[in-house]
Amino acid sequence: MDSDYGVPRELSDLQKKRALYHPELPPCLQGIEVRVEFGDQTITSDQTSAHATRQAFPHTYGQPLVHFLRPTAKVPDAQIISEHPPIRVGVVFCGRQSPGGHNVIWGLHNAIKSHNPGSVLLGFVGGSEGLFAQKTLEISDGVLSTYKNQGGYDLLGRTKDQIRTTEQVIAAMTACQALKLDGLVIVGGVTSNTDAAHLAETFAEAKCSTKVVGVPVTLNGDLKNQFVETDVGFDTICRVNSQLISNICIDALSAEKYYYFIRLMGHKASHVALECALQSHANMVILGEEVTMSKLTISDIIKQIADAVQARAKQEKYHGVILIPEGLVESIPELYALLQEIHGLHNQGVSAENIPFRLSPWASALFEFLPAFLRTELLLNPESDESAQLSQIETEKLLAQLVELEMNKRTKEGTYKGKKFSAVCHFFGYQARGSLPSKFDCNYAYVLGHICYHILEAGLNGYMATVTNLKSPVDKWRCGAAPITAMMTVKRSSRGPGATPIGKLALHPATVDLKGKPYEIFQEKALSFLMDDVYRNPGPLQFDGPGAETKAITLCVEDWDYMGRIKLFQEYLDKVKSIVKPGCSQDVLKTALSSMASVTNVLSLISTPSFGSQTTL
Amino acid sequence: MDSDYGVPRELSDLQKKRALYHPELPPCLQGIEVRVEFGDQTITSDQTSAHATRQAFPHTYGQPLVHFLRPTAKVPDAQIISEHPPIRVGVVFCGRQSPGGHNVIWGLHNAIKSHNPGSVLLGFVGGSEGLFAQKTLEISDGVLSTYKNQGGYDLLGRTKDQIRTTEQVIAAMTACQALKLDGLVIVGGVTSNTDAAHLAETFAEAKCSTKVVGVPVTLNGDLKNQFVETDVGFDTICRVNSQLISNICIDALSAEKYYYFIRLMGHKASHVALECALQSHANMVILGEEVTMSKLTISDIIKQIADAVQARAKQEKYHGVILIPEGLVESIPELYALLQEIHGLHNQGVSAENIPFRLSPWASALFEFLPAFLRTELLLNPESDESAQLSQIETEKLLAQLVELEMNKRTKEGTYKGKKFSAVCHFFGYQARGSLPSKFDCNYAYVLGHICYHILEAGLNGYMATVTNLKSPVDKWRCGAAPITAMMTVKRSSRGPGATPIGKLALHPATVDLKGKPYEIFQEKALSFLMDDVYRNPGPLQFDGPGAETKAITLCVEDWDYMGRIKLFQEYLDKVKSIVKPGCSQDVLKTALSSMASVTNVLSLISTPSFGSQTTL
Repeated sequence: MDSDYGVPRELSDLQKKRALYHPELPPCLQGIEVRVEFGDQTITSDQTSAHATRQAFPHTYGQPLVHFLRPTAKVPDAQIISEHPPIRVGVVFCGRQSPGGHNVIWGLHNAIKSHNPGSVLLGFVGGSEGLFAQKTLEISDGVLSTYKNQGGYDLLGRTKDQIRTTEQVIAAMTACQALKLDGLVIVGGVTSNTDAAHLAETFAEAKCSTKVVGVPVTLNGDLKNQFVETDVGFDTICRVNSQLISNICIDALSAEKYYYFIRLMGHKASHVALECALQSHANMVILGEEVTMSKLTISDIIKQIADAVQARAKQEKYHGVILIPEGLVESIPELYALLQEIHGLHNQGVSAENIPFRLSPWASALFEFLPAFLRTELLLNPESDESAQLSQIETEKLLAQLVELEMNKRTKEGTYKGKKFSAVCHFFGYQARGSLPSKFDCNYAYVLGHICYHILEAGLNGYMATVTNLKSPVDKWRCGAAPITAMMTVKRSSRGPGATPIGKLALHPATVDLKGKPYEIFQEKALSFLMDDVYRNPGPLQFDGPGAETKAITLCVEDWDYMGRIKLFQEYLDKVKSIVKPGCSQDVLKTALSSMASVTNVLSLISTPSFGSQTTL
Repeated sequence: MDSDYGVPRELSDLQKKRALYHPELPPCLQGIEVRVEFGDQTITSDQTSAHATRQAFPHTYGQPLVHFLRPTAKVPDAQIISEHPPIRVGVVFCGRQSPGGHNVIWGLHNAIKSHNPGSVLLGFVGGSEGLFAQKTLEISDGVLSTYKNQGGYDLLGRTKDQIRTTEQVIAAMTACQALKLDGLVIVGGVTSNTDAAHLAETFAEAKCSTKVVGVPVTLNGDLKNQFVETDVGFDTICRVNSQLISNICIDALSAEKYYYFIRLMGHKASHVALECALQSHANMVILGEEVTMSKLTISDIIKQIADAVQARAKQEKYHGVILIPEGLVESIPELYALLQEIHGLHNQGVSAENIPFRLSPWASALFEFLPAFLRTELLLNPESDESAQLSQIETEKLLAQLVELEMNKRTKEGTYKGKKFSAVCHFFGYQARGSLPSKFDCNYAYVLGHICYHILEAGLNGYMATVTNLKSPVDKWRCGAAPITAMMTVKRSSRGPGATPIGKLALHPATVDLKGKPYEIFQEKALSFLMDDVYRNPGPLQFDGPGAETKAITLCVEDWDYMGRIKLFQEYLDKVKSIVKPGCSQDVLKTALSSMASVTNVLSLISTPSFGSQTTL
């Protein structure tokens, strides 16, 4: 695979304008000097994972949280880096392309060159395969000129998603050493950042001097945790999809004769579907997380949709728009169990043609019940992260067909008296991935690129670049870095024959939090969305005028700023320490002790692993 | 069906901004008085059609062309209408929704009310069905407020596409008389405007005082003729689709592993596909008109695509984007013949299940060769204009599957040595129809709405509102009206059992002109598009900044201004007449005679029906 750099590119007026846009930097990254503050040592979010992570990552677990501050910031222990020797950095796109990827490279290049023009940035051509093969393109301003603020990963391209097997890891290390890299920046989602963490640990173990840095870029919106508020690309994807969904809503309302079943790309989690529902006010969205929580079977879901169709028919409404996340198929218990059996047989080397004959009687019965197109799609080889090929499984068609059968049945039984139910199916996936990135994604990616440079300059290994307080304007953004190991958890899934071992340590896709603010807001409005057709059209992505500065609703309603709060907590601790010093009064000490005892008790209680699960019951 | 007016609508920031935009009027329509100039009597573009039209439309054929001019324009015979008695007008959406429809109503309302606040505009709720049932909504500024510059037809909705049967025509006339309408404005494409022409003739015959006016609004871009440069909605549809196609191009270029087969809505003609190809520089487009002209069979088309895949593979390119107009299926001779047989059997009342058994041996063999999904889709009932249900026939999947078979065959034979061919299919249809209209469509629709009022005020019946010189800024637009009968031609198609009679007089969808400028430009670039991946991303539809004022490429490269030229021709005639008056010199008269004889001979020759067909051979 070759880089497309050098191919003549005809930019449209809008692309030219976008290429001229220069993202703003938050105050802490402006100027040459940046103050690095090391915070507390990090832990993982639960104790089981902490133990497993400590064992698996002896060199990179427990590293401190890092904040980047203005050189003038009044922080006692922070360190100012004022020497900027030339460095050599490699950057690689891993996994599915996501809008904004090019801006990470641009930000990184800009930071590297502005600190020392002698530094070198090498892009690996063709993703991880290019890394293994040491196929590089030296990044320069000229190379970047037509890729700034543009979509796709076409400047460098991408191939395989993983850097995981021993051979792959050795090839990566060999490349870094041969190219004398001080740093390797991996741009990708949960899988690629898990790989980045492993690579960092291996490099540290092998005393390879290349530091590994991860950047959260994935359209799925599922690289999200206490340190990462959202990932690059999610905003753009949701806006492109919401535009199309809204167009379909208006279309449905104009013709008043179809139900549109729209499947949305977004992998296992339903973040994209939830955000699009909040933006477009589509009538229904079947969130995978709700299905999992309530253990809804196919027939439960069909009943739910059919009941909605029936309720709307009573109001003379024979149209509607229903959003289906592509991951839904893995949330429906019986389909998930069937997929697990199929993947188990794949792993045992059984060919796709023979799998149907090797299924358990139960799975076989379900398999035979499904329409032919779905059977073929379920038999496809699983993806590199062992999930099904979600983009290929037409769940929307399955649901539409089954709802139609159900409505016909109800008509025959006389329980449904409305007009004939008609469905049109859509899959919105590939048409959003290559979009021009939104202003938000342009800025966010560019700033993350800058942060990567400062992480490397501070000599950190196995970190992810982070920006928090993203819902505020850029001048309020906080820049930092968190060890990727602190985001890891032990996965407890996978059953069935030949399943992967229980307890895999990795970054796992964040699911939609059913106790979170965005879901709460959605629930308040769900009935009105369903019945009242209060469709809202965010319109096409704008780069000027109203709408240009909009950000994802799920980002803005969240009460985020974890990093800010961690800092605030530290300030409280320092304040308390400074008050309760030897020589303070008995009263002060007594009050301090009783208050701290109470705080300690409460926190111990709610930090036990069982606490969370009890409250959800 | 109810109007959605009154349903609470939450507008996004962009929608609010759009609602505040007020389209400009060309100079001739500014102010209260407009000068109406009657041009020459119109004819149709060929003599056979002229004869048939004169017979079928005795009251409305041969009416003069009309130009609307500034009251200060120096035109001798023009008439200024300075009295503006209150009028009552009805407006109805017919056929598929198209972006910009709402602005026709707004423009019409604004013109009506600014000339006499006592005038009334009634919208028919639910399309032609609403017209028959006399279900109206009085249009006011309040009603319009959240629909200005917005997409869809949801203010009024639409149902059936036709006003054609005797019952329907009578119901329409009854409604117009009961509601005391001075005018009925029909918003739609070729079918609806054909209906408008028939309705106008019937009304004139029956001495019904309601005048009928048509407005060219259809996303297909196929209501295009010597008087109509483009229709409302085409620009928006092409821009939304081009955005998505470009995103897919970037996606293809990033992952470098898929061929995307994208089917585009646009009915029989390939205007949308051609415009999108010019905007996005996708690798290939299979224009129905090319297929028809060269009589390409399925296997010719498959070979063409497979050869392209093979040529690209030699350059290590394993990705690409191929555009397929939805009408292609009717351009491929064997599929067309099969569809004709199926529709013939439909017309004979044969049920879909039995059709396969009633096909001729030849058609039956082809039918059995086709994949199951396509067989089901081909058997669907034809649409009201007797074409197949193009939006439901997945030609892109058929082609992708057959190309895959062909590449596998070539691999086995050793003639193709590249990587495995992988295709992903998309249909871009419904997701564009409900889009916020582009600035161009907003302006064009609004101006057409205004013109409708002036047509009615001038007492004209059976006219279509026209704007020419559209590629220039609004202040250079020319406003006029042309009798719909002048756009009619006799259709010479339809074969097979039970086919419709030869020689149907109607407005026919304009096809892509293979001798026209847009196609010429496309042909010059086609090889580079195919091989060089010079993708261009027009980006999402903008309403501010670069790209906001863009217009369709096929519109701008055309050397249009038919109406302007007709006027210029008239000026030459007048000039010649004023020179060659009794009393002029012998020399002048002699030169005039010889020149006019020569002109007359040349024009007579190229106006004969056979002339055009000879030159194309």
